[in-house]
Amino acid sequence: MEKELFVKLLQDREFKAVRSILNAMNAVDIAALLSELDDKELALAFRLISKDEAADVFANMNNSMQTYLVEMFTEKELKEILDDLYLDDTVDMLEDLPANLVIRILDSVSQTKRDMINVLLNYPEDSAGSIMTTEYVGLRQYMTVAESMSHIKRTGIHKETIYTCYVTDRRQLIGIVTAKDLMTADDDVLIKDLMNTEFIAVHTHTDQEEVAQIFGKYDLLALPVLDTEDMMVGIVTFDDAMDVMVEEATEDMTKMAAMNPSEKTYFDTSVFEHARNRILWLLVLMLSATITGQIITKYEDAFAVLPLLVSFIPMLMDTGGNCGSQSSTLIIRGIALDEIHFKDTLKVIFKEFRVSLLVGVALALANGIRIFIMYHDPKMALVVGLSLICTIVISKIIGCALPLFAKKVGLDPAIMAAPLITTLVDTCSIMIYFTIATQVFQL
Amino acid sequence: MEKELFVKLLQDREFKAVRSILNAMNAVDIAALLSELDDKELALAFRLISKDEAADVFANMNNSMQTYLVEMFTEKELKEILDDLYLDDTVDMLEDLPANLVIRILDSVSQTKRDMINVLLNYPEDSAGSIMTTEYVGLRQYMTVAESMSHIKRTGIHKETIYTCYVTDRRQLIGIVTAKDLMTADDDVLIKDLMNTEFIAVHTHTDQEEVAQIFGKYDLLALPVLDTEDMMVGIVTFDDAMDVMVEEATEDMTKMAAMNPSEKTYFDTSVFEHARNRILWLLVLMLSATITGQIITKYEDAFAVLPLLVSFIPMLMDTGGNCGSQSSTLIIRGIALDEIHFKDTLKVIFKEFRVSLLVGVALALANGIRIFIMYHDPKMALVVGLSLICTIVISKIIGCALPLFAKKVGLDPAIMAAPLITTLVDTCSIMIYFTIATQVFQL
Repeated sequence: MEKELFVKLLQDREFKAVRSILNAMNAVDIAALLSELDDKELALAFRLISKDEAADVFANMNNSMQTYLVEMFTEKELKEILDDLYLDDTVDMLEDLPANLVIRILDSVSQTKRDMINVLLNYPEDSAGSIMTTEYVGLRQYMTVAESMSHIKRTGIHKETIYTCYVTDRRQLIGIVTAKDLMTADDDVLIKDLMNTEFIAVHTHTDQEEVAQIFGKYDLLALPVLDTEDMMVGIVTFDDAMDVMVEEATEDMTKMAAMNPSEKTYFDTSVFEHARNRILWLLVLMLSATITGQIITKYEDAFAVLPLLVSFIPMLMDTGGNCGSQSSTLIIRGIALDEIHFKDTLKVIFKEFRVSLLVGVALALANGIRIFIMYHDPKMALVVGLSLICTIVISKIIGCALPLFAKKVGLDPAIMAAPLITTLVDTCSIMIYFTIATQVFQL
Repeated sequence: MEKELFVKLLQDREFKAVRSILNAMNAVDIAALLSELDDKELALAFRLISKDEAADVFANMNNSMQTYLVEMFTEKELKEILDDLYLDDTVDMLEDLPANLVIRILDSVSQTKRDMINVLLNYPEDSAGSIMTTEYVGLRQYMTVAESMSHIKRTGIHKETIYTCYVTDRRQLIGIVTAKDLMTADDDVLIKDLMNTEFIAVHTHTDQEEVAQIFGKYDLLALPVLDTEDMMVGIVTFDDAMDVMVEEATEDMTKMAAMNPSEKTYFDTSVFEHARNRILWLLVLMLSATITGQIITKYEDAFAVLPLLVSFIPMLMDTGGNCGSQSSTLIIRGIALDEIHFKDTLKVIFKEFRVSLLVGVALALANGIRIFIMYHDPKMALVVGLSLICTIVISKIIGCALPLFAKKVGLDPAIMAAPLITTLVDTCSIMIYFTIATQVFQL
């Protein structure tokens, strides 16, 4: 849909045309189109969306659009949207809304819904509780398939998913039944004979990253959430798990590039916020890089005699940094995907040691030959080659070991990535280089 | 499940105990447990898995385990597994199997299935066609809900998903109906009145990354795939899309750390493969870093007079590299998540310019003050401060622009990440630094 045409129709009050355009689009695309309108057009266009799609469009809007609309809505409009909005989407919105609007919303919903919202709002951020919904299909073990199907027909339309149903006995989860089981079973089969009692569940306090990992590992559509007394309280659905997966990968990449992660998109983050997210780490890394500088000054006499020595510093530093970040990236990602664990540390170090020897020798040869050809200086070729091998071995071992130790002591492995390792490896490579150089050239 | 206990039971031939352990576990966990056994134990244990779970366990195994089992299977066993295996999982396995085993498998399946496998195997790698399955539920528009439900009851058990059904008319897709629609509608409603005609579809040649993006954006369970003549040929299910999403994030991270991506896990990749994946980029970057070295030698006279100059090189180079990789990471991720496009290039550059000024001034001040206190040298403080600001501005602009241009000319933006930008920025920062220094100190 072209924005210009849409805005023009809206301004010309061609409401019939606007309505039929909106009817032909799905909720996600409508929300995207509306995000390009200014506030007045937004309010106008939103009221032209068909009733049964309005809540879905609303759930897909960004926070500032939702805030504006909640302010604009009449009591009646607000009530209608809130009735159709899934509970987890409502809570998502409330988490970012100003206090006065939160109060307005809580006043507009029923007492039962208000209580459920309050419970969900109280779970820690990034926990399973904070991303779950309490709207799921519950069945009893002595229902038949036919009874269950008619129960779903009555209540299912307002549930976020009906494809996994939960069999409870005094709020205790005792089994799960999929819609596929129900649809392919005979009518008089008892739920108790159909249900799967080997199910996977998480607790309200389980970290959302772990929740997403479980979804990925077991290809689930929904995951039941239990409270501290093992009572069933809600479910996490796969769409929220997918969002978490994407979010966590973004967060890891951001941290690996020495920034504080932000939940907002690039353009939604202001210049000041961008600067703030980046400065702290840059300062820390800058000050530690000056240590490397201090070490260099200790070898002033060496490069006063042999200025060519200085010209290999960038190459050594960059190669060390690159080698370290190669190893740390593989290990950080392996930890995030649950493929590498702390118990593998020695195995990983031994593997990286062998890889680094191969890589080191190859690079040292390439460089040694180049130096020999360019400067006809076998001693310099030897110094640079040896320094390269040592630097590569050390940087790969630091690069693989640090994320694993970070994980062990409860830090985020992603923080131990390229920039920090580069700074560490720099110091090592400079020291190795000048130590070897002063020995070989007897400076 | 503890591996030691399991192996002991297996070796003691306590098959009843092993069977009941396996019965209590789900397919994913059984596959993980079996991956720790040696080949002979694997074959033994696999035969103890219940018939209805065996194919599912098999689908979750890694390639070397599948290869071994296919070699071991009798004709009858192979046939049984292949009958229960979903088509997309079969194709996945065939893609990595040695030729003689591929032939053996193709000989064991029916002619129809063989034809379907051959079609799927012929789609380009990483295309929607290569990850789709042809097993979906098809409905006709003049069926009633009751007729559809009984059709699903008869045929659904062998379909990978029955939660989205596809309404076709002469192989043309005309609408989709969800299981939720069917389960909550009255029996005599016609499919044609229930179906949604505003659906999203992809083509067999659509890139799998785009497919995964569509899943994430629209929260879909399955996505129909059309051929070049717009005929419906298959579906991609959400679990495969989730795998693609994780895979693509890993691939991006790997490339961003200057490595050739590998589809295998860290431990499944041999030392030689690891070395091969890493050496090429290191060589390229190493040789370009020597250019920076060459530039330094041009200023030999400058640091012969003022050796302190050399000590700020690591700090400048590291800060430039870090600033560049901060920007490139944000942009690369934004492109991957479809949040940043080439048309935003000027907007991005202007934003990064403002961010880099803020960051540059802050870092220059911090460093200037430090240098002034340590060396009481206002000129040196000025030189380093100015160089820092220029380096940061240039590195952030290179960092944000390169991935966007890469995308524009059809290259992978992730290749334009930290290491390449670091090497570029190094050269710039050294030149800026020595230019400013020679001016200020009149060297």
